[in-house]
Amino acid sequence: MVSMKDVLVVGTGLIGTSVALALKAQGVGVYVRDSDPVSVKIASSLGAGSMEEPPKKVDLAVVAVPPALVADVLVRLQAEDVARHYTDVASVKARPQQDAIALACDNARYVGGHPMAGSERSGPLAARADLFDGCNWVLTPTSETDTDTLNAALQLVAACGAVPVLMEAAAHDRAVGLVSHAPHLVASLVASLLEPADERMVSLAGSGVRDLTRIAAADPGLWVDILNANALVVADLLEEMSEGLDDAVMGLRAVGATDDDKRSNGARIVEDLLRRGQAGRARIPAKHGTVPEQYETVTVMIGDQPGELARLFTDASSAGVNVEDVHLEHSAGRPTGRAQLSVTRDLREVLVTTLHNRGWRHH
Amino acid sequence: MVSMKDVLVVGTGLIGTSVALALKAQGVGVYVRDSDPVSVKIASSLGAGSMEEPPKKVDLAVVAVPPALVADVLVRLQAEDVARHYTDVASVKARPQQDAIALACDNARYVGGHPMAGSERSGPLAARADLFDGCNWVLTPTSETDTDTLNAALQLVAACGAVPVLMEAAAHDRAVGLVSHAPHLVASLVASLLEPADERMVSLAGSGVRDLTRIAAADPGLWVDILNANALVVADLLEEMSEGLDDAVMGLRAVGATDDDKRSNGARIVEDLLRRGQAGRARIPAKHGTVPEQYETVTVMIGDQPGELARLFTDASSAGVNVEDVHLEHSAGRPTGRAQLSVTRDLREVLVTTLHNRGWRHH
Repeated sequence: MVSMKDVLVVGTGLIGTSVALALKAQGVGVYVRDSDPVSVKIASSLGAGSMEEPPKKVDLAVVAVPPALVADVLVRLQAEDVARHYTDVASVKARPQQDAIALACDNARYVGGHPMAGSERSGPLAARADLFDGCNWVLTPTSETDTDTLNAALQLVAACGAVPVLMEAAAHDRAVGLVSHAPHLVASLVASLLEPADERMVSLAGSGVRDLTRIAAADPGLWVDILNANALVVADLLEEMSEGLDDAVMGLRAVGATDDDKRSNGARIVEDLLRRGQAGRARIPAKHGTVPEQYETVTVMIGDQPGELARLFTDASSAGVNVEDVHLEHSAGRPTGRAQLSVTRDLREVLVTTLHNRGWRHH
Repeated sequence: MVSMKDVLVVGTGLIGTSVALALKAQGVGVYVRDSDPVSVKIASSLGAGSMEEPPKKVDLAVVAVPPALVADVLVRLQAEDVARHYTDVASVKARPQQDAIALACDNARYVGGHPMAGSERSGPLAARADLFDGCNWVLTPTSETDTDTLNAALQLVAACGAVPVLMEAAAHDRAVGLVSHAPHLVASLVASLLEPADERMVSLAGSGVRDLTRIAAADPGLWVDILNANALVVADLLEEMSEGLDDAVMGLRAVGATDDDKRSNGARIVEDLLRRGQAGRARIPAKHGTVPEQYETVTVMIGDQPGELARLFTDASSAGVNVEDVHLEHSAGRPTGRAQLSVTRDLREVLVTTLHNRGWRHH
């Protein structure tokens, strides 16, 4: 139950407007503000909330502005005494927290937050009430934070349908650097090597490198801002990776040596990296934020016309099999492809038998 | 039409046995050999071919042994005069070619080959007649190669249902280094940083890093062999990436500087890398080996019970929409997820309308 009555959302971009829409959908009274009169008008006309000044102190103010501006806005809102509690939704957390201390904000009444959701699009028109549905929402309370303030932020997270995760600001920034910002730059780097490559070389690219570089397709302008806001953390992580790459280069060059000891030592360096990679990969949550289950894969040949996937999933579900993940691999130069269906171990046999009986080519 | 009458396959691992099975399925007479008597017995009992000695010279001998052994086997087979033409299926091509020259093989009668298919599994029991269906199969003829020999290899490729790609050996090795071997190590490196990380940090990992590190889950033992066989090419590529990472680190550190010029220069370095990555990513073939079309994505909220995907694809196909790619994104902590459907631009509107009318939540 959300007991929060009214909220002021400052900043009506994608995230702010989505927060406002989610709160409205829960029956919370929402007021919206933005320095850009067009943006706030759009948000309000989308039903995100009222453009009027709140007649009295609201329960919570949500600061939805870029990381560099959070503390400035916070200090002004607190001077106005507009809300009982304050939070923000910026994608980095250490800098706003430090700024808020430097500007002598009332830090007992402010807790940092970061909903881990987004879209390739931006602005209020891209906003959706369900943007945060099932997403992690990090909150970064300090020893100063008032429990009531933290509870207000937890109500916000619940109203948005998200899952709260409490972390220290620096740990958050390192975490998003590790699982998002640094990987993004690495994907860009791998993809950038394909840019000047010969057409025939690129034509050999398969699903491995395609998946690896998927995030490199995102808007560079948006990502410059994200990376800049967490620049030093990401720099440290990339430096660590660069050292790892240099080790791998050394290992591979040793593999090419004539000396047997050098060769086997080189191979050991390479294998060690691969093993650590496998172990790290196994830690990534597959689903529902739980420890990843080991899935089994069933590969099925499919035709390239409408209806093939529908038929395949209908056949799978007729056997009561829940497909955990799908991977489509299109064939080079021919109108067929492969679908890799991931299922839990206990269901693999059932799926294989069912597909076999229905005439699918699988393995 | 495959006019080839008989083929000797030497080496009954995954690839050799799959080649044999594919040829048998096309009515070609197949003989199998392996230094391991168990492996060849399994292959033969799977219907891959006869273990007897060919009574006369066969049309083609396929050398399906590790890269380092190809030339040794080739020189022995040619001394035996067992076949009119020779090819191999090793995953690197420069070394076997150089070895064959060093051992004074009849190089007019030998053309290198590499079917770009594989499996996480190995050995004859993992073999399948359709392993190469629709895959690229690189052939590396030289100026010495006899046209009849190249044609025999092209018949093999066609019989296996694959698409032939002619390349120089060195270009092939650089290409697979670029699109497969180096990316594999990079994925391992990114994943390896997650290995020692705090549980809460790892729990924030989303679909971006999950896709990026997918290939890092592969068997390290197998990949050590692959990487070792192309060690120097991969080392050069990783060195290039390491330099790219160092540039990014420099750019990011400059972003953290107080000097305005330094800051904007740093941001420019980062943005430039992101832009080149976006351009390189756009070159990866999406399907059928053709230039990637720009797809539009429709995101649909799905429940987590059996039948949801079936219902979704049935609804999509009822509108005549062919889904080009699917991406499942499971939600943290709640039993729902999102399916991202990629469709060609002209079909997006139709799909959205159809899904809307059938009650799906989408955006």
